[in-house]
Amino acid sequence: MSERLVGIDVGGTKMLAVAIDRSQPSEVLEMHLVPTPSTSDGVLSALRELSIRCGVDQRLGIGLAGLVEGGEVLRAAPNLQSMIDIPVRAAIEDALGVTVRIDNDATCALVAEMSTGVARGVDDVVLVALGTGIGGGIASGGEIRRGVHGFAGEPGHMCLDPNGPMCVCGRRGCWERYASGAGLVWLSQQRSLRVDGTGNAITAEELAERARSGETVALEVWAEFSEWLARGLANLADVLDPELIVIGGGLVAVSDLYLDRTRELVVSEVLGGRSRGRIRIEPAHSGPSAGAIGAALLN
Amino acid sequence: MSERLVGIDVGGTKMLAVAIDRSQPSEVLEMHLVPTPSTSDGVLSALRELSIRCGVDQRLGIGLAGLVEGGEVLRAAPNLQSMIDIPVRAAIEDALGVTVRIDNDATCALVAEMSTGVARGVDDVVLVALGTGIGGGIASGGEIRRGVHGFAGEPGHMCLDPNGPMCVCGRRGCWERYASGAGLVWLSQQRSLRVDGTGNAITAEELAERARSGETVALEVWAEFSEWLARGLANLADVLDPELIVIGGGLVAVSDLYLDRTRELVVSEVLGGRSRGRIRIEPAHSGPSAGAIGAALLN
Repeated sequence: MSERLVGIDVGGTKMLAVAIDRSQPSEVLEMHLVPTPSTSDGVLSALRELSIRCGVDQRLGIGLAGLVEGGEVLRAAPNLQSMIDIPVRAAIEDALGVTVRIDNDATCALVAEMSTGVARGVDDVVLVALGTGIGGGIASGGEIRRGVHGFAGEPGHMCLDPNGPMCVCGRRGCWERYASGAGLVWLSQQRSLRVDGTGNAITAEELAERARSGETVALEVWAEFSEWLARGLANLADVLDPELIVIGGGLVAVSDLYLDRTRELVVSEVLGGRSRGRIRIEPAHSGPSAGAIGAALLN
Repeated sequence: MSERLVGIDVGGTKMLAVAIDRSQPSEVLEMHLVPTPSTSDGVLSALRELSIRCGVDQRLGIGLAGLVEGGEVLRAAPNLQSMIDIPVRAAIEDALGVTVRIDNDATCALVAEMSTGVARGVDDVVLVALGTGIGGGIASGGEIRRGVHGFAGEPGHMCLDPNGPMCVCGRRGCWERYASGAGLVWLSQQRSLRVDGTGNAITAEELAERARSGETVALEVWAEFSEWLARGLANLADVLDPELIVIGGGLVAVSDLYLDRTRELVVSEVLGGRSRGRIRIEPAHSGPSAGAIGAALLN
C-alpha cells in the first residue's frame, strides 16, 4: 500500500524537502531545495510551504542541524542559531494538522543509510555530514545511539587545536572550522583565494570546479581539507571503532576530490590503523539527500 | 557459594593483581602491585607469579593497556609495546591450567564500575583511565561497546593538536600527551620543573605533594592538566552524550587536584554545555583498582 512520507532537512545554508513512498524509500518522488531563511519565522514559514509543495499527507519528518533535545526542540546549533529553543514540532503540527517528528539532521541521514543505503545491515556505523558545518550520527550494535539528552554524534565541535581559528560556537579549532563548507572557505582564505573581482568568499562549488581544471591552489585546499577530515575521522574511529564511516551532507557531491586521500590518511592517523582491516569509508548512497530521506523515515 | 576470581591489570608502568569473591566483588581479598617488566617474557612470568600469589583457582582475567583484538591478542599498545602480538591468553592458560579472559584494561575498569561501582544502573557511560597514558571504555544503552575489532573506547590517541608534542604512537598532539601521567611529566618539563638534583623527570606523586604544599609551579601544572583533561572529555561528550563520565586509572588517587576544575571546564568546552543538565563526572568507586577488579569480573 502506498503511503506518502515527507522529510525536510534544515541545514545552515539550505533546506531540502523530499517526498518518498514508504514502500520504496530510496526513490525520491519530489524534491525542493531553497536557501535557509535567517529568521525563525522565515524557517517555520518555509517548512510549511515546502511540506505543502511536497504533498504532505499525514506525516512529516524534520531534520535540524544541531542538538535536538527529546525529539522536540533545538538546544544548541552554531549554524542554525535562529531556531534555538523554538518549538518547531508543535508549531508545524498546529499549522498543518499532521504528525511531525524531529531529529538531528545527520542522525536522519544515518536512518536513511541504515534502512536503504550503504549502511544497511552494518552494526557499527558513524555518519559524518559535511555541510556548512559537520553533523554526525552513530550506531552501535545495530541501533542508533542518541545519548542521554539526544545530543550524541555531534562531532563537528570536537577540538582539534585549542589555538586554532575561532568557531561560530565560541570555541577555537573545532573540527568543522576545517573539514566542512565553512572550513573550505577558511582554508581558501589562508591562501588568499577569493572569487575574482567580487571580494566574496569562494564557494565549495567554485573550489571544486577550479580543482578539476587543475588550479594548483585549489588542489592544495582540497588536499589540506582531506588531512583535516582524516584527523577527525581518526578521532572518531579511536573512540568508536566502526566498521563503516559514511560521508553525507552537501559536500558528498564532490567526494571524488577528497575521499581517496582521506581513506589513506585515516589508516595512518588512527591508532593501530593497519590492524583495522574492516574499516571502510563510503559516500552516502542517497548523497546530499540522505538527511531529508531519513527525516521522512522518522515516521 | 564462594568463588575466588583473580584479575590483573597490566599498565604501562605497573601491574596490579587482585583476588575477589564473586559474591562480594567490591571487597578486595588480596592485592599485589609490581612494576611492569620491560620484556614480554618478563610480563608473562609476572602474570604467572601474581596469579599464583593471588591464589588463582579456575578463572583469571587480564586487562591490557592497548587495543585487544577478539579477546585474544594486543594489536596496538603505545605504552605496552613488548606485548604486541604476544598470545597472552593461550600462554597463561597453558602454563596455569586455568581459564583466562582478556580485555582492554580500561574496559575492565568500566565492567567493575558498572557492576559494583559508580556506574551501576547508568546506561550511557564513558570511563577514562588516567595512567601512564589514557585508556577508555564506553557503554551505551546499558551495554559495553567494543566496536567491530574490539578497539572501541581508546580515546588517548585522539588528536588535540596536530602540531603538538610527538607521542609514543608516532603521531603528534594526542590527548594522552597532556592529560595522563606522561602528560604531567611533559607539562612539568615545559616549566623546567624537575626533581631537584637528580635530573630525573618529576613523578605525578611528587607533583601532587608539591601542589598540596602550595608550590605555584606545581599548581600551574595541575591547572593546565585540568584544561587538557576537560578538552578531551568535552570531545567525548560531543560524540557520545553520556550521562556519566567515570575517571579511573592511577591518577584517580589524586583527583582532588583536578576534578572540580575539570567539571567546570567541561561545561564550557562541550557544545551546548549548559543544556546538558544530566552530565556527571565522578571518580571510579574502586579507584585505581577498578581495572584489576573488572578483569576478575570478565569471568
